[in-house]
Amino acid sequence: MTIQESILQLAQRARQASREARLAPTHVKNAVLASCAEMIESGIDDLRRENQKDLEAGKKSGLSSAMLDRLNLSDKTVKSMTEGLREVAALPDPVDEIIHAWRRPNGLEIGRMRVPLGVIAIIYESRPNVTIDAAALCFKAGNATVLRGGSEAFHSNQALAGVFRKACEKHGICPDVVQVLDTTDRAAVGALLKLNNYIDVVIPRGGRSLIERVVDESRIPVIKHFDGICHVYVDSEADLDVANDIVFNAKVQRPGVCNAMETLLVHQAVADGFLPGSLKRLAEAGVELRGSESVQKILQGSGLNILPATEEDWRTEYLDLVLSIEVVDSMEAAIDHIDKYGSHHTDTIVTRSWERGRRFLREVDSATVLVNASTRFSDGQQFGLGAEIGISTDKLHARGPMGLTDLVCTKFVVSGDGQVRT
Amino acid sequence: MTIQESILQLAQRARQASREARLAPTHVKNAVLASCAEMIESGIDDLRRENQKDLEAGKKSGLSSAMLDRLNLSDKTVKSMTEGLREVAALPDPVDEIIHAWRRPNGLEIGRMRVPLGVIAIIYESRPNVTIDAAALCFKAGNATVLRGGSEAFHSNQALAGVFRKACEKHGICPDVVQVLDTTDRAAVGALLKLNNYIDVVIPRGGRSLIERVVDESRIPVIKHFDGICHVYVDSEADLDVANDIVFNAKVQRPGVCNAMETLLVHQAVADGFLPGSLKRLAEAGVELRGSESVQKILQGSGLNILPATEEDWRTEYLDLVLSIEVVDSMEAAIDHIDKYGSHHTDTIVTRSWERGRRFLREVDSATVLVNASTRFSDGQQFGLGAEIGISTDKLHARGPMGLTDLVCTKFVVSGDGQVRT
Repeated sequence: MTIQESILQLAQRARQASREARLAPTHVKNAVLASCAEMIESGIDDLRRENQKDLEAGKKSGLSSAMLDRLNLSDKTVKSMTEGLREVAALPDPVDEIIHAWRRPNGLEIGRMRVPLGVIAIIYESRPNVTIDAAALCFKAGNATVLRGGSEAFHSNQALAGVFRKACEKHGICPDVVQVLDTTDRAAVGALLKLNNYIDVVIPRGGRSLIERVVDESRIPVIKHFDGICHVYVDSEADLDVANDIVFNAKVQRPGVCNAMETLLVHQAVADGFLPGSLKRLAEAGVELRGSESVQKILQGSGLNILPATEEDWRTEYLDLVLSIEVVDSMEAAIDHIDKYGSHHTDTIVTRSWERGRRFLREVDSATVLVNASTRFSDGQQFGLGAEIGISTDKLHARGPMGLTDLVCTKFVVSGDGQVRT
Repeated sequence: MTIQESILQLAQRARQASREARLAPTHVKNAVLASCAEMIESGIDDLRRENQKDLEAGKKSGLSSAMLDRLNLSDKTVKSMTEGLREVAALPDPVDEIIHAWRRPNGLEIGRMRVPLGVIAIIYESRPNVTIDAAALCFKAGNATVLRGGSEAFHSNQALAGVFRKACEKHGICPDVVQVLDTTDRAAVGALLKLNNYIDVVIPRGGRSLIERVVDESRIPVIKHFDGICHVYVDSEADLDVANDIVFNAKVQRPGVCNAMETLLVHQAVADGFLPGSLKRLAEAGVELRGSESVQKILQGSGLNILPATEEDWRTEYLDLVLSIEVVDSMEAAIDHIDKYGSHHTDTIVTRSWERGRRFLREVDSATVLVNASTRFSDGQQFGLGAEIGISTDKLHARGPMGLTDLVCTKFVVSGDGQVRT
């Protein structure tokens, strides 16, 4: 059997199983998730043995210690997987919810009902826990999942998916609702991305090159999770103490994630008063500062080391303790900067002005726009959506933090008593 | 300038203009639409002159009379355009609507706000009125539009878009919110479909080969409007008079559209009683009947001409007075047939059973599922959504009849008073 044939068969099995997942009662889905958590706990030695194979192969092939760390099924990772499963089980089931219903003059009653998407393919990189996290969310939303993890996590991913499948079988659900590609051949992904008759959506989770490749090759709709080049704009009417805390939090609390601030914009009216103290605090926390000429001028003689910011800096997602800083002469200039250089992910204004807060919320075209709060809140958990599959930078279907209700679509359900059209 | 360069510039102008469209007040957008209707009426002679060029070229190149008819800006077509503009002006503006808002324990207030998608490309075939219909809907939803009509309607489309642009200028809106590609070169579409940095979504409106080409070439997300292979299932518990009227209406009232019935499924318990009368009525209306062996057997000696239905028939969208007919031995078999052969567009059950109606609504995975009503109701106007841009057969973002609220996306707006994440 060629790779194309074996991927086709896998996708056909997923499509077939998706009918069962679609109609599975909530209590059965929740029982599968709970059993999966228990089976991970009770079968942890077997999982560790498979994980060890990946770790050893990784060491041999010279993976960095950071990569090996991400690959490792540590106690913490295992706990986060089992807690995640139980948390998803506790979330409300989005399937069959009627989000809007109305009656027409001719007596037809029309409703929009949330229904599963069908088959979701997830293509991801090193962390094996994504196997469980993604499968759990997709399954709770009534979908079948085709998973393709990084080749360096091959054995771990197979073992984890195997546990999920066993949990399905235990509750009479066809295990093919969760499948992992059983090859590390790159051609398998190419073949998968052509199967738009069997797979409804592809979600790539990983770096830009992975996502670009999926977009290039896919005939299946893709939901993309691109960079977060997030801004905090400190307005002329900002409370500078509030601004100081938000700026520090947005940059330092967890710099390696997509909702961390990468660029600070400060209104010129408050730049002299705000920047020296705020940047000193950031520098003391180890942040490398890159400022425009105006910024460097203000900080002259402060003793702080401000590197010159280049055009490239405004377009860079550092994911690290690095910050680019610009002074703007108006809120409009700040919005223009965000529009030109940002990634339309998450942007914040700090202001005491009601009118400027309202305008910023309306005029900034990003997935999340905040007033007087840290960019770090742009997150499914923080929003109260429960676990998230990621943060979409697309505009279609899902934008921003994607929870369970973004893993379904809707259908129109219409109830009549013999109506015909005239 | 190469075609690639000129398309790039056009897309850049659209992106720039989309900022203006996004923030345009409702009353200004409505005034543009009203002025456009007036200008079409007052400038009808100029429009007809341009339309005449296309009609003459079409005659020369041997277009069929059906094609020429679709190309013609008849009084009826003009009236439908101007009425459409006024109707879209009267629809509620979807932009800035908060569809859901809540407060978190930490005091953050979070809302999902409807905002325009940005730039929408529409690629369509012969009918020039689509130029106005599509531009009006997209503009009312705050978007800029890039239009590419059929080459046979080139002059008509340019002239109609010119009127829309003049209406924009009259009210101080940048006319680049509506642009038509000024070339009939096929390479222009290929170039357009690569510009995912400037265009947010592509909606192809036309035959399967057009849509397939767009899906193949596009790096921009596509919303597809594929076939409607729609079913009416007459259940064992159907009211046969109701079934007779629904079947007749779904097939005959307007056979050339995607929500017309193509396949009739009848439960074996009522097939003997239902089929002869119902099929006679259809035959008298000029419908060609293609039945399975069981159907042929039931109709033996009836005098009706039933051609044998092939496997291919179940998968065919006739868009004509042709009907394929099958007898099934259970509702499950009907649902299986719909799942296997249908296009998941629109499907109806006729039944008096509450339980079977409920099950059909839930278990059939189509964009529109009806009980005791004609498939012909699967339509934006009939649903009360107002004008529609089409009927999406995709599951992502929009499924089924697409109205104004499907031409926007959402963003999260978050209001705080200094919250930082711990």
